[in-house]
Order: sequence, then C-alpha cells, then structure tokens
Amino acid sequence: MRKHIVLQTDFGLSDGAVSAMYGVALSVDPWLQLFDLTHDIPPFHIWEASYRLYQTIDYWPEDTVFVSVVDPGVGTDRLSVVVKTEKNQYVVTPDNGTLTHIKDSVGIMEARVIDEKVNRLPNSGESYTFHGRDVYIYTAARLASGIITFEEVGPEHDVKDLVLLPLNEMAVKDGVITGNIDILDVRFGNLWTNIDRHVFKEAGIHYGDFLEVTIENNQRHLYKNMIKFGRSFADSRLGEPLLFVNSLDKIGVAINQGSFAKAYHIETGANWKISFRKVEM
Amino acid sequence: MRKHIVLQTDFGLSDGAVSAMYGVALSVDPWLQLFDLTHDIPPFHIWEASYRLYQTIDYWPEDTVFVSVVDPGVGTDRLSVVVKTEKNQYVVTPDNGTLTHIKDSVGIMEARVIDEKVNRLPNSGESYTFHGRDVYIYTAARLASGIITFEEVGPEHDVKDLVLLPLNEMAVKDGVITGNIDILDVRFGNLWTNIDRHVFKEAGIHYGDFLEVTIENNQRHLYKNMIKFGRSFADSRLGEPLLFVNSLDKIGVAINQGSFAKAYHIETGANWKISFRKVEM
Amino acid sequence: MRKHIVLQTDFGLSDGAVSAMYGVALSVDPWLQLFDLTHDIPPFHIWEASYRLYQTIDYWPEDTVFVSVVDPGVGTDRLSVVVKTEKNQYVVTPDNGTLTHIKDSVGIMEARVIDEKVNRLPNSGESYTFHGRDVYIYTAARLASGIITFEEVGPEHDVKDLVLLPLNEMAVKDGVITGNIDILDVRFGNLWTNIDRHVFKEAGIHYGDFLEVTIENNQRHLYKNMIKFGRSFADSRLGEPLLFVNSLDKIGVAINQGSFAKAYHIETGANWKISFRKVEM
Repeated sequence: MRKHIVLQTDFGLSDGAVSAMYGVALSVDPWLQLFDLTHDIPPFHIWEASYRLYQTIDYWPEDTVFVSVVDPGVGTDRLSVVVKTEKNQYVVTPDNGTLTHIKDSVGIMEARVIDEKVNRLPNSGESYTFHGRDVYIYTAARLASGIITFEEVGPEHDVKDLVLLPLNEMAVKDGVITGNIDILDVRFGNLWTNIDRHVFKEAGIHYGDFLEVTIENNQRHLYKNMIKFGRSFADSRLGEPLLFVNSLDKIGVAINQGSFAKAYHIETGANWKISFRKVEM
Repeated sequence: MRKHIVLQTDFGLSDGAVSAMYGVALSVDPWLQLFDLTHDIPPFHIWEASYRLYQTIDYWPEDTVFVSVVDPGVGTDRLSVVVKTEKNQYVVTPDNGTLTHIKDSVGIMEARVIDEKVNRLPNSGESYTFHGRDVYIYTAARLASGIITFEEVGPEHDVKDLVLLPLNEMAVKDGVITGNIDILDVRFGNLWTNIDRHVFKEAGIHYGDFLEVTIENNQRHLYKNMIKFGRSFADSRLGEPLLFVNSLDKIGVAINQGSFAKAYHIETGANWKISFRKVEM
Repeated sequence: MRKHIVLQTDFGLSDGAVSAMYGVALSVDPWLQLFDLTHDIPPFHIWEASYRLYQTIDYWPEDTVFVSVVDPGVGTDRLSVVVKTEKNQYVVTPDNGTLTHIKDSVGIMEARVIDEKVNRLPNSGESYTFHGRDVYIYTAARLASGIITFEEVGPEHDVKDLVLLPLNEMAVKDGVITGNIDILDVRFGNLWTNIDRHVFKEAGIHYGDFLEVTIENNQRHLYKNMIKFGRSFADSRLGEPLLFVNSLDKIGVAINQGSFAKAYHIETGANWKISFRKVEM
C-alpha cells in the first residue's frame, strides 16, 4: 500500500516554509507522495486546524499520515505527538487541541510522544522556532516511508490526556433547536452550524419548511428572520437566504450566490449562537 | 501511458474542500497523479473557468482528465457531463457553459452524461451541495485509472446540445479593429483581448507601429490614447503602456511593470469593448 | 535517483500560467515529480526570489532542479542560464540577480547559457512574453528527465559574470551590531535580519539578555526600545516583542502572536537598518 502525507499549517504559501518541509520529507524518501490540506489556517487558530482535519480525513485512504502545524506554543513544554485513529490514519501535531474534532468524530486508538532525540532532523538542534520542518514533517516522512514504526515514534501517551478544546453543544427545547456557528465555508460566506441533519429530521422539519432563524453574539441579536429549508441551492432564488444540509451532514445557512457572513457580519466560535424554530404558515 | 488529473474550482484553498476531492481520487486509485489548474476562479464565474481551461489544455499531455467545478447550478437539473476533445483529453464538468472555449478552439468529439446511479461516491446520497467531491472527482478518478471506460460514464449526449456562453466577436472595418477584453492576466493587470495576432498582421500592423487604442464600457469611453505595438516588454520604458502578443497569440495591453487594469479601472466581459486604429506618424 | 523539479514564480495561482508550465514539463516526461516553492513572490521582486531559493534549497535532495521565473527583463538581452551548485543542485533562471544568495551561501560550480535553438518548446517561436513556459520549464524538464545533460543546456558561462544584487553588510563596532532587515516572515510579520546567530554569541549576548533595538529607514528612526533575546517564543508573553534565532540561524524580531512589521510599519531592503546594543540591567 502506498502511503500519502497530507500537510496543514498556518504558514501561508508566500515564503519558503512549506517548501522546506516538502524538501525534508523527500530527502527522507524521494518516493513519498505529498499533498496539502490547507496552509491558510488563520495564524494560531487551533480550532480551525482541528475542524479542517475533521472535514477531510474521512475522504483519505487508510494509512494516510496527516501533519498539522498550528503551533502557538512552539518552544514551550507542549508535547509533540503522533496519534493513530480508529480508522488507521495518523496525525502528527503539537498536542494543543488540534485533535479535538478527530477524537470526537473518528476516535483515537493510540498516542505517542515524539522522541526528539531520535526523530529530529539532523543538525537542526539550534533552531527552536520551526518544529514543522525539524520535527513534525521529518517524523511523518520516516513513519510514512516505513523507516520507523508507529511504536518507534516515542513513548506511549494516554489518549485520555490529550489536550482538547471545548466542543460547542446543541440543545432542543420547546421546539427550539439551539447550537453554534462552528466555522465558515470561507470562500462562499456560508455558515456551518454544529447541528446534525438528523436533529432536524427528528424535530419533524422537512425540505420546504420555513424556520425562524436567530443569530446572537454574547446575547446581542444580529439576525432574526424566516428562512426556507431547501434540498439544495436550487430551491431558493438568487440572493435569497436558505438553510441546507452541508457536505458534512450539518445544517448550513447561505445566501444563494451571496455571502451570508459578510451580509450580516457573522463570525464563528463559542460565542456565536444560532437557533431554529419551525413556523407553521 | 500515465494519466493525469487536473483540477479547477472556485472553492479557494482556505478550507478542506479541495483536499477532500484529492482524498476521494486517491481512495479510488492511490497511484493517480493529481494537479491543480487554479482554485481561484471568482465564485460562480463560468466564463473565467471556460477561459482558464482554454489557456492551459494544449500544454497538457493526451489522456489528461480535467475536472472543472464552477457550479452555481448545483442541485438544479443542469447536467453533469464528461467530454472527449478532438485531441483526446477529457473534461469533467457541469454542463453550464464551462466548455465554451474548449469547444470553439479545440473541438469536442463526444459527450456523455454522468450516470450518478453508478458514478457517485458511495454513501454520499444525502449531500446535494458538493458534487465536486461526490460526483465529478470520483468519476474523473475512475476514468483516469481505467476502472471505467469513457462509454461507462453514462449515456451519450449530443455535442450540439452542450450549453455554450456567447463568445465575443471581433470586427475589422474602415481600418478600425474592434474586439473585447476577454480576461485579465490577473497578477500583472494586463488586458487580454479576443483579437488574434494574425488580424494585426493582415491589417499591416508591425512591431514599432503606434495605434490609437479606445476602451469603452457600455458606450462610456474610459481610455483613448496612442500606444506602441512592441515585440516584447523591453520595447517600452518602465511605466509606459504597450501593446504586445500574449502567450495565447492574442493582442494584450499592458503597462511595463505596472497594472493597466488598475490604472484605468478596466474590467472584462461582453460590455468591455476595445478598438485599435493604426496611426501614421 | 529520482529527480524533482521545484518551481518558483511571481505569477500567482489565480490564472493558468503555472498550470501550463506543469503541463509542458509532464509532456516532456509524464513521470516527473513537480513541486512549488512559492508563486507569490511580489511581481518583479528579484531580491525576494533570490532569498526564497536560499531559504529552501538546503532542505531538498541532491539533483533537484529549481526553476525560478521572476523576470522583469523578459524580451531584453538578459541571459537565460542553468547553474549547478556546489551541492549538485540545479537552478534554471533568468540571469538577473536571482542567484545572488545561492552563490553567496551555497556556491555555484558551473553556469551554462540556455541555447534556445535547441531548448525551447516547439512552435512557441512567436511568443516573447512567457519564457517561463516556453524556455525555463521546458529546459528544466529535459534536464531533470535526462533527455539532455547539463552540458547540452548550452555554452558555458563564466560564474564570475553572473549578475548579482548587492548583499547588505553587517558590522560590529563599539558594542553595537548593525545590519539590515533582509526580508519578512510574511504570514507572521516577523523581521528577519542578515545577522547570524554566531555574531550574537561572539558579542557575548546570551538568551535572557536585554538589547536596545533601533530600526531606521533612510536615517529616520522608526523604533528604539529594549527587547529580550529569547530561546523561543515561549520566553516572551503574549503580545510582547522578542529577539530570536530564526529557522535560518539569523536573528529575528517578533511580537509573540502579533505582527512586528505591521505594528511599526517596518519594510525590508537596503535602506532598512537595524542595530542591537547589549544593555546591562
């Protein structure tokens, strides 16, 4: 089986950082296949790094090795780990919350702390600011190419001790479904909530129904209006808002060929609450 | 012969959408070679998607499979097709005008409608908003890897019925050559017209000649000045405008190391007319 | 040994230019492995192209072929060259200063001028504006795939005659270390100076020491304050400035999780001087 490496960082692609990581991997094994998830994670935004792994990991083959370097704590005593998921994929990352969504949705079978005495790019000892190049991709390349086994990454680490960010919760009460705006579909300005499709189904909400949608940030109301739940964008007119099931089977909020996020200045995170109430018309 | 897949979308690279498409392809066949055309097509801009295919397709080997997903009509009854060009390359795309330039410049030999009962990512049935991942790349990967033949994509579709955008026309009359600004060389702000180099040749225009250039948008004049027709940028001074033959053998308008588009607020499309008249000096 | 090609340009990725280059290379040899350094060099910025090569080249395997196309002089009589470095890597580039840092840091063993009668994409003769596609990548692909030897690139060119940009100099006098801000770590806004770590060492500066840092642009003072020299970002508080050893073993200036460049409007180049003086506290 061919092993792939998929890289994610907050480095951007405007300088040579990501390319240096590629070079390190191909110096370990010139036959490795390297791919990008994204390098456009907002600087230091661990939550978004965690979410983008969750958004893509299920579509990659078994044995794929993911490397995620969003690492505000480089140089602190935060651990560097490699985990093996329940579906036999690997993630190499600082242990800073980046594994939150993967642990919750896929499950983590085993974790190991990278032993930097063995798994560190030779002669990189005086640089303390670029572990992505000197530790993470180097270890990922050795693992993917079979130079080291998962066990040889370093000592085992209790999966229960991995650092996790708090996940937003959702609730259904008195016919009102309340959740969070977890993230944006950046390019199109669609909101992605943490509410699963089946929650709408269980609440008896069907395609074509109208819902009252309320968005608030720290108790401040920013949006309150009726929106139709459509099977696809084709069920709304150009420029009209609609609710839809996104590509991860969650409820999304969009403006057909517009940007809902820009139109109403909506952002994401724990303070961004959204609620839905079915309206009989 | 090794088959390559080249992806183009309007998704951007800031989230996991393109990476999920890569993963789907490599799950079909881990040995596929995947490449990007661009993922920075302006959202829903079918004309530009069509143009970028035209700009690059001739430089890729036979049997390359292109996937273009600029799909404002996802979820409507627009068709999903795979076409085989006169030069034995394939394009997988919604049938929404994306094939306009390819049909005109390369020619299309045969078209087939994707049969989603067979050619759809297993267990993706409830998502109606990401055909790029669930239908287009999945079909492209199966075709490129030889799992399905072109015939097994689905039923044949009459090439004459493919959706086409209107192409801008050019005209020569009383010594004035009139055409359109089809697109920008984005990074450098150069204008690319739809006027072929040989039209200048036939009109007796030579390198070193000066032309009166007029640019108008909906009858409103935005630029009217003399510009030299140069063999290359070296024939103009820094900051000076010039006419040149671009990399597709069309007439372009530039400012040497500046941006013509920004300097004069020029955009592109059917309403942006440009005309040239040779001036005896 | 597998040969890799690494591309760098100032073309951006929003249109088809880079993809056309990929296609040309794969038409020469469908088994070539192509990678990107960056395509986001600011337009015509030769210094930055030179620096990004220097930043990454050491991390790539022997025999890697780099192609750098930042080419304000396309169409002039500037030469097109391929050089072989002291570490057996190749760089294909216009001879316009792009090789400045490589020559200084790695060393260049031999240079050859591309003979365009042989090494030019067939039927590209009428286009004078896209040598990246028609000459540079075509030559790089033929060299990397072994179709031509280094000698068959074209006639030898004296390494001493390669065009070089002036490198900024540093000086130590009366306990003050003076140098330049060579470049930014773009995404994070950190300043990268041309002062090596060992200069600090020799001046008796240790982690934990405080230094008075002065930044001036054309004799105008823009910053003068005390900053701690930290072993890593962890040695400063959130939002606090610090001095650090960057990933190229040079002294950098940062704000922990902020942008020093934005905070104080700092840019880069020969006119941007920075000086350090150790302070006894």
